Amino acid sequence: MNPTLKSIHDRKSARVFLDLPVSAGYKEQLFQAAFAAPSAGCQQLYTILDITDPERKAKLAELCDHQPFIVTAPVVLVFLADCARWPQVYREAGCQPRSAGAGDLLLAVADACIAAQNVVIAAESLGLASCYIGDILENKEQVCQELELPEGVVPAAMLVIGWPARSQQQRRKPARFAKKYLVAENAYPKRTPQEHRAALEERAARDGNETFDFDAWVQAFEKRKYDSDFSREMSRSAAEYLKDFLK
Amino acid sequence: MNPTLKSIHDRKSARVFLDLPVSAGYKEQLFQAAFAAPSAGCQQLYTILDITDPERKAKLAELCDHQPFIVTAPVVLVFLADCARWPQVYREAGCQPRSAGAGDLLLAVADACIAAQNVVIAAESLGLASCYIGDILENKEQVCQELELPEGVVPAAMLVIGWPARSQQQRRKPARFAKKYLVAENAYPKRTPQEHRAALEERAARDGNETFDFDAWVQAFEKRKYDSDFSREMSRSAAEYLKDFLK
Repeated sequence: MNPTLKSIHDRKSARVFLDLPVSAGYKEQLFQAAFAAPSAGCQQLYTILDITDPERKAKLAELCDHQPFIVTAPVVLVFLADCARWPQVYREAGCQPRSAGAGDLLLAVADACIAAQNVVIAAESLGLASCYIGDILENKEQVCQELELPEGVVPAAMLVIGWPARSQQQRRKPARFAKKYLVAENAYPKRTPQEHRAALEERAARDGNETFDFDAWVQAFEKRKYDSDFSREMSRSAAEYLKDFLK
Repeated sequence: MNPTLKSIHDRKSARVFLDLPVSAGYKEQLFQAAFAAPSAGCQQLYTILDITDPERKAKLAELCDHQPFIVTAPVVLVFLADCARWPQVYREAGCQPRSAGAGDLLLAVADACIAAQNVVIAAESLGLASCYIGDILENKEQVCQELELPEGVVPAAMLVIGWPARSQQQRRKPARFAKKYLVAENAYPKRTPQEHRAALEERAARDGNETFDFDAWVQAFEKRKYDSDFSREMSRSAAEYLKDFLK
């Protein structure tokens, strides 16, 4: 396995960081990795917010489903899908651009996430650990106020980055599903109930869970991840963001 | 620069491939890189379609804004944001899951793009070249029919991958914007008209464009990328995808 593949495979999320800063030089390497990412028409349809103000970190930690560890991360980056910047450029050149639509938004979300993942891999290669915070999609009204987001700008991803505590380095990377459950040839697969059961059972076995009970595990997971307050709030908030692109 | 950062910085899009297959072993490494990506709650909210049927490639090449080079790519992967799979699992365990909402979709789009970018970096490290095809967002009705996509499943990204022709290896990677135009501290920046002009002029200069005319260049770019048939179609089609998540 070459060093790049090793970075990709070694990388796992970390939520406990050492009380050590990330130097300006390291941060610069992370940003440059983001910019090197592929981008639709080289438009770089994102703006990255570097959250350095401790009070703002604390506010975001609350708005992102009350996760205090976010405050302890030396680097907090919000990757914004930016459908506002290019229309400003167009107007400056005398064009009368149309309103940003759903396609512009999804393209910008892709650009932002692709750039964020370059940062994740770059961080890993430098010995830094990272964690995505999907909850940045929640609480649209307060997040927009806190980060001063104008219409056309949507948080696509948030990353916290720092030097991993030993506990995080020793944590096992959770097992992924088998390829046959995730990849299909030429068309979307019709999966049978048996395939779902087998996929989750097989993954649990590889994770060392010898007493996995499909029904009990899935019921608890659904309550925590899907039929939960944060998940409903995420969809409410995301729908509010989308409205601006569907006028 | 370590080898991983080098892969990140060396990588550029390629649209001309050698007439050589990508072996099953290499493809396996690409898939395993995708699966190693971070994912919300380790749910892997994506399904990857491996398009091997030449007729289907040709159909997709047409549906993606008539780009015949797609047919010549030995590997064509569609990364689907999959909000259908987990609800099937939930139902199998006796849950009655809510309909997928806008938050579920954006989270799945992020998961899919993050996995796709791992494939891009892995490919580069193996000597393979890649190109994202944003146009997969267009023509929802025909794409869904062609790929047999059920409700709740949305193409988030498409990648073509192969061995790069010499012309592609020799092509210069296009210059990116300066950091100060892409990154802001703590809040979304109010950019002035002068900043927009300066950012585009500075990028053009680094790209070796000595006679860059801001107004003329931006007007032509807006016509091609924003006020164009493919771009309007992308937003129409994407809005149709979103509707299912906003009921």
